[in-house]
Amino acid sequence: MNIGVLGTGMVGSAIGTRLVQLGHQVRMGSRSADNPKAAAWVAATGGGASQGTFQDAAAEADMIVNCTQGAATLDVLGSIGEDTLGDKILIDISNPLDFSRGMPPSLFVSNTTSLAEQIQHTYPRARIVKALNTVNATIMVHPERLGEDHEVFVSGNDAGAKAAVSTLLTSFGWKRIVDLGDITTARGTEAYLLLWIRLWQTLGTADFNVRLVRASG
Amino acid sequence: MNIGVLGTGMVGSAIGTRLVQLGHQVRMGSRSADNPKAAAWVAATGGGASQGTFQDAAAEADMIVNCTQGAATLDVLGSIGEDTLGDKILIDISNPLDFSRGMPPSLFVSNTTSLAEQIQHTYPRARIVKALNTVNATIMVHPERLGEDHEVFVSGNDAGAKAAVSTLLTSFGWKRIVDLGDITTARGTEAYLLLWIRLWQTLGTADFNVRLVRASG
Repeated sequence: MNIGVLGTGMVGSAIGTRLVQLGHQVRMGSRSADNPKAAAWVAATGGGASQGTFQDAAAEADMIVNCTQGAATLDVLGSIGEDTLGDKILIDISNPLDFSRGMPPSLFVSNTTSLAEQIQHTYPRARIVKALNTVNATIMVHPERLGEDHEVFVSGNDAGAKAAVSTLLTSFGWKRIVDLGDITTARGTEAYLLLWIRLWQTLGTADFNVRLVRASG
Repeated sequence: MNIGVLGTGMVGSAIGTRLVQLGHQVRMGSRSADNPKAAAWVAATGGGASQGTFQDAAAEADMIVNCTQGAATLDVLGSIGEDTLGDKILIDISNPLDFSRGMPPSLFVSNTTSLAEQIQHTYPRARIVKALNTVNATIMVHPERLGEDHEVFVSGNDAGAKAAVSTLLTSFGWKRIVDLGDITTARGTEAYLLLWIRLWQTLGTADFNVRLVRASG
């Protein structure tokens, strides 16, 4: 597939690299077409990757992955525009983290809505699927690094989009994919970040996730 | 120990019964000294249990367990009063669920504060420990019912109180107790309810929990 990755940070690099390894054509988008971090990433991937503006990354993509910081997400999508986003599948990995009070962050959207819902509301035709925001960049693309199988969650209004995203997640190595329901269920996975941050601080590592355990027998 | 259980609902009954089974003297508190649900619970336990007002349940308790609904909690504690609460250990199991918009509930306190913090702020001498609010009443007191070991979280400002609560949790059968830190970490476990509710709807059972999985090797 042609996949547009929005963002040049740890998440964008990890997702982009994994997608290239899996044989996809990946264009990393940022604010400027000559972003040095994106250029370094393209150089390091050795083929299958290119860079451009956010608009460039989205324009020819079969699927878009939002790896920007939550606080920038709506602005970035605005620079792409409704016409380009169209009815494309957009995997939203961002979290609405608010660092204005220092560490640990709070959320700038929460409880009765979510960033994913705000995106869906702003771009009603786009097929938003919230996923992967509950683990760090390493675990997103290499879930096998943890000692046992563990869960990734998907939220979205479009069943076909969730199926396509689940196929992609399976190719990353995910074995336990839970479809939580419509896009409003992203309130749950975004709010979980408030626990994730405390677990990260307590465990002293970001390489962890949760595994659902149910009643036996 | 003498333990006061506040609340006559599913959580209060489950916790109270388990405590009686473990040999504790349990007084179940409610708004009135002759609450019929509490009377039925006392009759069913067959010794070791009594009932009274919230004030009665707290007065002679070595430890108090708040099993009231989150929306009622501060009012209930107000009926007990600061003098009676003193520096007692209070396990807060409540969740700040807001059903005013229907199902699924949202939270009436979240993100930059938590119900546990509000309790601690209102009663600065009391030793509040948030625990058990991330699982349903059955799993709280019978964690072995799930097929694998799984986590329970404790949050609180007083290390001695958290140690005492951890001992009690161990007696319930909990094997993986994670001390998240001070009472502000209850923001994480209370916010997790927004995910818990969606998991409950998706899984079709409330008998589940999360098990932390970390990097192997």
